[in-house]
Amino acid sequence: MKKLILAALPALICIIMTSCGNAENNSLVNDAQAKCDNALDVIMTRTSVRQYTDQAISEGTIDTLLRAGMAAPTAGNKQPWKFIVVTERASLDSLATGNWRMAAHAQAAIIVCGDTENVFPAEGKDYWVQDCSAATENILLAAHAVGLGAVWCGCYPISERVNNVRRLFGIPSQIVPMSIVMLGYPAGEHHPKDKYKPENIHYNKW
Amino acid sequence: MKKLILAALPALICIIMTSCGNAENNSLVNDAQAKCDNALDVIMTRTSVRQYTDQAISEGTIDTLLRAGMAAPTAGNKQPWKFIVVTERASLDSLATGNWRMAAHAQAAIIVCGDTENVFPAEGKDYWVQDCSAATENILLAAHAVGLGAVWCGCYPISERVNNVRRLFGIPSQIVPMSIVMLGYPAGEHHPKDKYKPENIHYNKW
Repeated sequence: MKKLILAALPALICIIMTSCGNAENNSLVNDAQAKCDNALDVIMTRTSVRQYTDQAISEGTIDTLLRAGMAAPTAGNKQPWKFIVVTERASLDSLATGNWRMAAHAQAAIIVCGDTENVFPAEGKDYWVQDCSAATENILLAAHAVGLGAVWCGCYPISERVNNVRRLFGIPSQIVPMSIVMLGYPAGEHHPKDKYKPENIHYNKW
Repeated sequence: MKKLILAALPALICIIMTSCGNAENNSLVNDAQAKCDNALDVIMTRTSVRQYTDQAISEGTIDTLLRAGMAAPTAGNKQPWKFIVVTERASLDSLATGNWRMAAHAQAAIIVCGDTENVFPAEGKDYWVQDCSAATENILLAAHAVGLGAVWCGCYPISERVNNVRRLFGIPSQIVPMSIVMLGYPAGEHHPKDKYKPENIHYNKW
C-alpha cells in the first residue's frame, strides 16, 4: 500500500498541475513572467465556436459571463452597456438566419447593446462602441474560460441587422444592439487561428 | 511513514489546487464551472492603472501583449489592426498631456490603430473599431495577467487626439490611431470598481 501511494503521488500531482496549467501553449506566450498562465492561455486559444451540444447552460454561468462583461473598461466610467439574455428556444430560433444560423443550436445568446443616451460628451459620443466591444470580448473570454463555445455575431452598424433585432426583442430607439454572443458547449474540435503577423507592428514611429 | 503520506495527501492536493485557483474571488464569479479560474480572476480584477514604477518591461513581455492583441476576434477575419510600440522616453513624454499625463511615467505604450483600407464591405466598414477594441481589451487583460498595470486611453473618434498622435508618430491618413494602452509595473495599490448592475440585464425581451 505504501509503495502504491508513493508510486502514484508524482502522477497525481502531474495530472492536477496539467489540468490547471498551460503546458501546450508556451510557444504562444513567449518569455513573459506570467502571473496567471491560464489567463494568457484563454486569450490565446479563444476561437469562434459555432457548433454546440444540447447541454444546457446554468443561470450561474450566464451570471458569470454578465459580470465579466460589466468588468470591462469604460470611457469616463459611463458604463453605457445593456445586456439581453436570450434563452427561450423560439427567440433563439428567430435569430437563426444568414450568418447567424448557429443560433438554432445555441443554448443561449447575450445581446450586447449600447445606450446612446448615456455616453461621453461631444466627439467622444461614440466611445460606447468601444466600451461594448470590450464587454463583448470579456464575455467571449469568460465563456472560453468556463468551457463554453461562443461566437461574436456582428450587428451594429449594419442597419438591417439592428432593425431586425430591435423588432424581435422590443428594443427602444436609443438602445443599439451592437453584438450578439451565441453560446453553447462546443460540439467537435475547434482550433484557434494563428493571426500573429510581425508586419502589423511598428516601433516608436510608423 | 504510510500514515504520514495518507495524512498529508489531501493537504497537498488542496495546496496545489488553491495555487492554480481563485479562492479569494469566488463571490465575483458565482457558481460557474470554471475550467480556468485565473482567467476569470484576471477579467474581474483588471482595473485602470495610471501610476507605475521605474521597472523596465522586457521585449518578450511586450511581444506577449501584441500576440494577445492579435488573438482577438475580427469580423470576416479582416485583422484590420496595426500596433505602434512606444518605448522611447521622448516619445512617451510627447504623449503626456491632458488625460494622458501618466505617459510621463509609463515604461511603454501600445498605440492600437485601425487600417481603414482593410475593412468589411459596405455598412460593415466600421467593424474595425470593434476589432481594435477587442484587441485593446486583450492587451489590457494580458498586461494584468503578467503583473503589469495598464490603462486604455481613448483617442479615436476625438479628432484633436487623432491628429496629434498621427503627427507625433508619422501615421498615414488611412491608419486611425484608436486607443493607446499605457504600460508599467504598478506603483501603489489598485482596486477594481464593482460595475455589476442587475438593472443592466434583460431576459428574452427588452
